Amino acid sequence: MTATKIAIVGVGKIARDQHIPSITRNGAFELSATVSRHSGVDGVENFATIEELLAGRPDVGAVALCMPPQARFDAAWTAIKAGRHVLLEKPPGATVAEVEALIAAARDEGVALFATWHSRYAASVPAAKAWLAKRQVQSARITWKEDVRRWHPGQEWIWQPGGLGVFDPGINALSILTEILPQPVRVTAAELQFPDGRDAPIAAQLQFAGASGETVSADFDWRQTGPQTWNIEIETNDGQLKLSSGGAEMTIDGKVMMQEADSEYDGIYARFAQLVAETSIDVDLAPLVHVADAFMLGRRIVVDAFEM
Amino acid sequence: MTATKIAIVGVGKIARDQHIPSITRNGAFELSATVSRHSGVDGVENFATIEELLAGRPDVGAVALCMPPQARFDAAWTAIKAGRHVLLEKPPGATVAEVEALIAAARDEGVALFATWHSRYAASVPAAKAWLAKRQVQSARITWKEDVRRWHPGQEWIWQPGGLGVFDPGINALSILTEILPQPVRVTAAELQFPDGRDAPIAAQLQFAGASGETVSADFDWRQTGPQTWNIEIETNDGQLKLSSGGAEMTIDGKVMMQEADSEYDGIYARFAQLVAETSIDVDLAPLVHVADAFMLGRRIVVDAFEM
Repeated sequence: MTATKIAIVGVGKIARDQHIPSITRNGAFELSATVSRHSGVDGVENFATIEELLAGRPDVGAVALCMPPQARFDAAWTAIKAGRHVLLEKPPGATVAEVEALIAAARDEGVALFATWHSRYAASVPAAKAWLAKRQVQSARITWKEDVRRWHPGQEWIWQPGGLGVFDPGINALSILTEILPQPVRVTAAELQFPDGRDAPIAAQLQFAGASGETVSADFDWRQTGPQTWNIEIETNDGQLKLSSGGAEMTIDGKVMMQEADSEYDGIYARFAQLVAETSIDVDLAPLVHVADAFMLGRRIVVDAFEM
Repeated sequence: MTATKIAIVGVGKIARDQHIPSITRNGAFELSATVSRHSGVDGVENFATIEELLAGRPDVGAVALCMPPQARFDAAWTAIKAGRHVLLEKPPGATVAEVEALIAAARDEGVALFATWHSRYAASVPAAKAWLAKRQVQSARITWKEDVRRWHPGQEWIWQPGGLGVFDPGINALSILTEILPQPVRVTAAELQFPDGRDAPIAAQLQFAGASGETVSADFDWRQTGPQTWNIEIETNDGQLKLSSGGAEMTIDGKVMMQEADSEYDGIYARFAQLVAETSIDVDLAPLVHVADAFMLGRRIVVDAFEM
């Protein structure tokens, strides 16, 4: 099997930190081009636009779309219509309807489409899912608090409509929750804190409920300096599961069961290779639906202005 | 075939104005009970809660849920789990995820579930759909402006989270749009105007785009006194279609093609009878997804306080 030539569109922090190293380590892919207005990668052909890439490099069979979500749809649509396999960074789009349109287009064109949720590839997620499958979930508590200045330096798009604000990290927690819970939950209440003059929330508290009476609370905050917190604690009829460090570590009733270094994006590219081989579609909208529901149902509160 | 005994849950304005007369005219149903804390219907047994109805009247095979959307889910879930067919007033719920949960539950329990969009049963909608199916849509303009004080007297729930504000009427326009357009569209931008101190918008402007370059604009406003406006104008490669009076009237290139009195709810109950006979599910989430997308993507603007 020859490697699929892949192009990265949007060569920012996440592409350099994660996508390029994982592609380099995966024999199924060969990084063959980039699209960036600012900076490419040494030794790899760079294009200013995705249209130029698609026209100039018919040998590139797949694209990984790593730009901000507001621009994801147009690039994905163009690539799918040009018959290329598409990997979407999270969130897969700025709206639910546009991602549904991509699914239909990928089906029509016969290409692979992968809406990645990188946190689902954290080390402990499969083990947590298996452990919960045999138990009754009573309640869960998500605490996802980080320093926006540290993780999104200079990224003004996160504050613009479609940038999702604190839901940009928060959706990672929701992608884990929706993966590991045995039954779906639904947002029942939300409070969204918008900094004065900003179009996206800096903090949010959500309440969820499930069919068997289980409840979930989520506390997202982007103003946490010092130690960062990415925890999910789940109480069951038979013990407590805790995921911390975004899913890298798992404890059960306080005992460490798993603790591994991050290799989320290696998992993502292994999965994408499989989808490309099978020309399959893997798009789970559940995390994005919860965010949309929280915006629709949520009470808005204006808090102090926040400067990056 | 004996008539299905049906109960109305939530005996408010829409139940009295529309549901009860249409049920009375439809031989497939017999209005057999109501659930209301305030007021029932003369000669029909009334219960204070849906739980009491379901326990006391196993002969009631179907329920029509006409309460505000924030309370719809719990009632629907309870009725489905008790094996009753369920009709949902619009919007079908306060979140997308909760309606998805109802679909799954109805499938599990083997009952009919109908998420009604009454505006789809306006007289001109089928003809408009058929006319557009043979043409290329270039653009559409929705103007949906009404007086909230006239249509929602005393209904504070419309301003509360989950009440949707001006999207409560606006979703009627979106239910027509998504029914008659040959191809789906997606929200690309939105501006939501929240009255100072209110948790739901009083006006909204939306932009949509479709796969073939077609564009749609929607202008929703709840502050229109005097004549009320519920229009959808669609430009195609072969003429202009205009629906007015919420779809009761249709003109093509200015010529009146159809003009009929409202019988939306007769159409709804005819359809529900069919779904009950087949134990089928008819839930189209597209209008609600567009609203959720608009809230997620939309820019929020605070406007003057508004008193009912």
